[in-house]
Amino acid sequence: MTVTYLSTLPLPDAWFAELTARLPEVEVHRLTPAEAAAAPADLLRRVDLLHTTAWFPEPEQVPALRCVQLDTSGVDHVRETRLWASAVPFATLGGIAPVPMAEYAMMAVLELAHRMPLIVRHRNDRSWPDPAERLATLTPRQLAGSTLGIIGYGRIGREISRLASVFGMDVLGLSRTGVPNAAQAKFDTGRQTADGDRAQVLPMDRLDEVLTRSDILVVVVPLTELTRGMIGARELDLLPPGALVINIARGGIVDEAALLERLRDGRIGGAAVDVFDDEPLPPDSVWWSEPNALVTPHVAGLAPQYHAQTLDLVVENLTRLADGRPIVNEVDRVSGY
Amino acid sequence: MTVTYLSTLPLPDAWFAELTARLPEVEVHRLTPAEAAAAPADLLRRVDLLHTTAWFPEPEQVPALRCVQLDTSGVDHVRETRLWASAVPFATLGGIAPVPMAEYAMMAVLELAHRMPLIVRHRNDRSWPDPAERLATLTPRQLAGSTLGIIGYGRIGREISRLASVFGMDVLGLSRTGVPNAAQAKFDTGRQTADGDRAQVLPMDRLDEVLTRSDILVVVVPLTELTRGMIGARELDLLPPGALVINIARGGIVDEAALLERLRDGRIGGAAVDVFDDEPLPPDSVWWSEPNALVTPHVAGLAPQYHAQTLDLVVENLTRLADGRPIVNEVDRVSGY
Repeated sequence: MTVTYLSTLPLPDAWFAELTARLPEVEVHRLTPAEAAAAPADLLRRVDLLHTTAWFPEPEQVPALRCVQLDTSGVDHVRETRLWASAVPFATLGGIAPVPMAEYAMMAVLELAHRMPLIVRHRNDRSWPDPAERLATLTPRQLAGSTLGIIGYGRIGREISRLASVFGMDVLGLSRTGVPNAAQAKFDTGRQTADGDRAQVLPMDRLDEVLTRSDILVVVVPLTELTRGMIGARELDLLPPGALVINIARGGIVDEAALLERLRDGRIGGAAVDVFDDEPLPPDSVWWSEPNALVTPHVAGLAPQYHAQTLDLVVENLTRLADGRPIVNEVDRVSGY
Repeated sequence: MTVTYLSTLPLPDAWFAELTARLPEVEVHRLTPAEAAAAPADLLRRVDLLHTTAWFPEPEQVPALRCVQLDTSGVDHVRETRLWASAVPFATLGGIAPVPMAEYAMMAVLELAHRMPLIVRHRNDRSWPDPAERLATLTPRQLAGSTLGIIGYGRIGREISRLASVFGMDVLGLSRTGVPNAAQAKFDTGRQTADGDRAQVLPMDRLDEVLTRSDILVVVVPLTELTRGMIGARELDLLPPGALVINIARGGIVDEAALLERLRDGRIGGAAVDVFDDEPLPPDSVWWSEPNALVTPHVAGLAPQYHAQTLDLVVENLTRLADGRPIVNEVDRVSGY
């Protein structure tokens, strides 16, 4: 059986050449979203795997479709499409981000523990603190023995856990089910094996306990109906005084105004924020100059091996379709990820 | 035999109370440097261990002295004293800094790999790059599979190696002898055991090879007659194009002008610099605003557990003196550390 693949993504020529080299029997089509919208009906009718991020046909146009391979880890932008309301399986890009996301999270942990927000202010003021001031204000927090709470303990959380434990931190994870591994087949480029993971993972209804125990909190949960507004003022107030917060999830999960208020009065000791309710963050946003926040422009998920790993993922799913096996990274439409 | 201890350091009362609690038989004296300069001759004559950083008596005043316990890892400030020219053993603070120094080094590796110099510029300009610019300019360098060169492979280097290897990096160390462990007894709070260390360690005469192979270079060698001016223009030019440089050693080892020139023309891809020829760094220094450099005010060695660990070190050396055993952390006056 010939498997038909249609991409609407601007991937380089070399990527498609490599795809054909690895799967010569697959019929490969490349169209821009505009071209796809005007594509011959008989081509669309044959597509088995649609690789897309923004163009979604009506279900009736793609009766043979067996997989929508997204170019994102989240599905929040897909929920309004009729294709989402159909029975066609969607696959995410999940599993490519664990390494860069975990590196970013660990960088943020280190920057906040090593007083980088204050050091950045010295840098901007061209001021070099004297030895006594340095000792009093710039001695780092001790990471060893402190607890890192990870809200959203999936593949990324597990890779963060692997790194944090090497710095002597205790890791506490929160996941929807409290079970680190879901039953579905998942693509994963992280290096932590499930049985190498020493994190304690708790289910959703124990969120308060995770917050109470976390000296440093990393929020990396997907944006779903369950997680929207999940970390509000009440939740932030459960953290130990002076806790550090790192948000690499999506805007809409952490209450920005509540976080800002607590950063300013010291209840939260520092924050690294990569995602915002409003993106692009407007030039007049107070976040740009908030002294206790390290702001980055939604970069935590950028992956150096994106092309090679995306190719591996697409090859895996095309092979599974050819063999009649279930795809990897299938989105559970109930949980939303 | 009663051991006599004299401190000229401004440590807290609790520190001295704990010292006495742990070693009740030791005679403990606390003086400021000014008081020490005017101390009764018969007290000085009895001192076995002098704990100091800036006050050094003449050798004739302290005939019983068997250990000068410094409050620094380096001895560059001691070399001009007559006490250094005597036969009295000096002990450094070495072994307390490995954990915070290695954390700092890993933070710098991550910041440079994850494009923080450019992100800081976006932050200062309140500019949020669009997705295409983000992908093209802010995708991190890949750490896994890259080589980290560590110039000065001692206790700190070994702890850096432990962390870097968890990020998938290959570690190449350079030490005076090429042997990771010196024969002298050394205090060490780092967590890497000698047999857990997978770094390749080369001797001093293979510096060029280390430079040629290092995608990222960390300089953490002590300042000695051998290391002064060690990393100059010629050495920097041996690094692969776009290499990253992290200097947490001492001013005087890396040629600052040569580094700056290469940062500006791109031969060096980024630098994190914690130590300078001129400290405090003057307000008009070009380093403060160098776009490809992350400047910090000599903070890498600040240790969260400084008090507790210094106490452990002093207790260890006082116990050794009481037992007539050689001290830990004794400085080799030939190598200078």
